Amino acid sequence: MGEIDAMIAKLFASMSPHMRELGFEVISVNQGVCVGQLPYRESLIGDPRSGVLHGGVVTTLLDTVGGAAVLSAVAAPIPLATLDLRIDYLRPSRPSQTLVARVECYKKTHNVAFTRGIAHDGDESDPVAAMAATYMLRTQAVRGAGAP
Amino acid sequence: MGEIDAMIAKLFASMSPHMRELGFEVISVNQGVCVGQLPYRESLIGDPRSGVLHGGVVTTLLDTVGGAAVLSAVAAPIPLATLDLRIDYLRPSRPSQTLVARVECYKKTHNVAFTRGIAHDGDESDPVAAMAATYMLRTQAVRGAGAP
Amino acid sequence: MGEIDAMIAKLFASMSPHMRELGFEVISVNQGVCVGQLPYRESLIGDPRSGVLHGGVVTTLLDTVGGAAVLSAVAAPIPLATLDLRIDYLRPSRPSQTLVARVECYKKTHNVAFTRGIAHDGDESDPVAAMAATYMLRTQAVRGAGAP
Amino acid sequence: MGEIDAMIAKLFASMSPHMRELGFEVISVNQGVCVGQLPYRESLIGDPRSGVLHGGVVTTLLDTVGGAAVLSAVAAPIPLATLDLRIDYLRPSRPSQTLVARVECYKKTHNVAFTRGIAHDGDESDPVAAMAATYMLRTQAVRGAGAP
Repeated sequence: MGEIDAMIAKLFASMSPHMRELGFEVISVNQGVCVGQLPYRESLIGDPRSGVLHGGVVTTLLDTVGGAAVLSAVAAPIPLATLDLRIDYLRPSRPSQTLVARVECYKKTHNVAFTRGIAHDGDESDPVAAMAATYMLRTQAVRGAGAP
Repeated sequence: MGEIDAMIAKLFASMSPHMRELGFEVISVNQGVCVGQLPYRESLIGDPRSGVLHGGVVTTLLDTVGGAAVLSAVAAPIPLATLDLRIDYLRPSRPSQTLVARVECYKKTHNVAFTRGIAHDGDESDPVAAMAATYMLRTQAVRGAGAP
Repeated sequence: MGEIDAMIAKLFASMSPHMRELGFEVISVNQGVCVGQLPYRESLIGDPRSGVLHGGVVTTLLDTVGGAAVLSAVAAPIPLATLDLRIDYLRPSRPSQTLVARVECYKKTHNVAFTRGIAHDGDESDPVAAMAATYMLRTQAVRGAGAP
Repeated sequence: MGEIDAMIAKLFASMSPHMRELGFEVISVNQGVCVGQLPYRESLIGDPRSGVLHGGVVTTLLDTVGGAAVLSAVAAPIPLATLDLRIDYLRPSRPSQTLVARVECYKKTHNVAFTRGIAHDGDESDPVAAMAATYMLRTQAVRGAGAP
């Protein structure tokens, strides 16, 4: 990671109370691509019979990792907000597995950044969910969502 | 609430470890419409400078309330899974406010249910987010997301 | 309709070669809500066995009517571009029926406008499709999509 | 192309009145990936000042190519319907350029197929739009959208 990417990684790993609560860890931030994870824990479970993670946990991870990917692509500490996000849930996650998300910022204009990513539980070629999201850049007005 | 709606309310209010962790409360379940809420607490915050809730919290609430709305519309205890979900983040939530979601299941076929909803922090006419999601019905294969 | 809404209606009804080709007609433009339609014709059919309209026709109508709704909400002739759009297809349209779309711009910020709408073929309470879309305002950079 | 892929290509290239009207051409269908195109013509233009294609044309192409990708992945002539679709418009298309769409069906279950794709106007690394869509399989009920 470069210096700015290292700063982004540190910021996202430590700053948000909600992500700390979930146990969020940054794996890497590099030139518009971020990988982050949530180690399995009971408080993330949606269905206690199956041990499957709550769908909202998957989305929260992808939204956050996407925000870090965008900051990395912009390579500057600017205000950022998720504008909208689409999740496709492909299959239930496997109990006891760490949930990993990989999101890429593949396009940015002055005001908007476009991302796509996946979440998986060990095998990137067999994802749990796919995501596409757009983020507003340089905005004071819509702060909060998706940022740390 | 009718008997089945009361059962759904009870199920969603108590069963999911993740939703218990977030402090989820069901307000009402009635003929395909569910209202639920998350009282403000520090562990839900995304940005500690502003106190704004994490965007993922908003999505998680909407996904869960949507699942309850679908079960209520179907009026039967069937397996259920979120298939996909879109969130538009309209503005940051206000610190210290309870987050409320209202989701309606407005169409169902044998296999798929369609929902739309909003999240707000006190004034339903000034929402924080808008959501559209589809849920698969009667599936063993994609269990977990969106269900309690 | 007010004067600006009448101008928007005229603009959208006549200007776009593609919408003229499809036979687009504006029914009304009023304070952020637009209703427009496509009378049934053979060249709009997706499946010749059933006579059902092509899904892309439904989306194109909703995207266009959404653009007019946004301009009406802004009440000024500004550059406009669809940023992203989600369509849920609820059921096939009925052969020989006019396709009608109704889209509302329910929120706008300086840079972004949020819309939601439905398409139906005669009965607004039994829609063919539901749509949510965001539009960028005041942009030179992403011109074209969704505008006339 | 294998025999089934060749059949799918032929079906999509010729059968739909609307796609014939737009000038749709199938480039390839192969193991769950389809490439198709719309040569530039005046009737596809959204904005006559710039010559940019209508956003709905881009979506219609992606929806159709996605349907062919799904049939190819399933490798059987089953009924098919677009369930929902998200488009991100990345930039306006360039006048006079052929619009090309490439869609991959990357996951299928018994009832649902998941696709993602892009549209470009000559350079696949600089897309005009990105798309994610789900299709219902083996359904009589929601026929029409996205199928030829």
